[in-house]
Amino acid sequence: MTTPVYDDQNVFAKILRGEIPSEKVYEDDRVVVIMDVMPQAPGHSLVIPKAPSRNILDIAPDDLAYAIGIAAKVARAAKRAFAADGINIMQFNEPASGQTVFHTHIHVIPRHDGVALKPHTGQMAPRDEIAATGAKLRDAIAQEG
Amino acid sequence: MTTPVYDDQNVFAKILRGEIPSEKVYEDDRVVVIMDVMPQAPGHSLVIPKAPSRNILDIAPDDLAYAIGIAAKVARAAKRAFAADGINIMQFNEPASGQTVFHTHIHVIPRHDGVALKPHTGQMAPRDEIAATGAKLRDAIAQEG
Repeated sequence: MTTPVYDDQNVFAKILRGEIPSEKVYEDDRVVVIMDVMPQAPGHSLVIPKAPSRNILDIAPDDLAYAIGIAAKVARAAKRAFAADGINIMQFNEPASGQTVFHTHIHVIPRHDGVALKPHTGQMAPRDEIAATGAKLRDAIAQEG
Repeated sequence: MTTPVYDDQNVFAKILRGEIPSEKVYEDDRVVVIMDVMPQAPGHSLVIPKAPSRNILDIAPDDLAYAIGIAAKVARAAKRAFAADGINIMQFNEPASGQTVFHTHIHVIPRHDGVALKPHTGQMAPRDEIAATGAKLRDAIAQEG
């Protein structure tokens, strides 16, 4: 088995370099948090460590520990922002697991009782919907401090 | 909204206290890793911080950071042990997300190309199957160092 190599032309690397736009809701020197443009539920966001890594199989321990701490903060914020009943944290590694962008990212997905996750259709949500949920989540994260 | 309170009669608390058995594959002073008795794929394990918390919404940041580091080690070990093509990391918070045991735990699930996750049927896997996959994973984690 060969170990796959990080490819800096992936879409999150381009977002991190500012080459393509995103709905950013949090940023510090180590991570960004953006809205997923194909949300499986309203308010679905992604915590993305800035340092390059493909996934949990090659990420530096410190980068992973920092990112999960931010994911916890985002989870609490999302629960308030969207009056969610629960939160799914998901992190995929390699195509067999559902990973489609090969830069480490952690999904934070608000859930409501009785509402199933939407499948990944490959359809983008309307831009104004992403902007609206992004604004709510951004405010709630800021309040988490 | 009231914040749910940790209940120390949950099944993982009982496992941590040694009141009920489990197929343990790793233990240190802060976490245990056990095999999921209702695996969604062969080799499905759970990283369980020892300190009591309900989920990511109330866990202490240090406990979460430590647990995800162990989950990364288990992910690498599981990939080798089961010749997996990928790994899913999942962590559920509150019933709306699928959480059924209210002590924080992180799922580490080996995946193979073209093989779907089994649904949670509530059926336990045969004990000898859990013991066999547990033995493989235990060895692989020990090799991770």
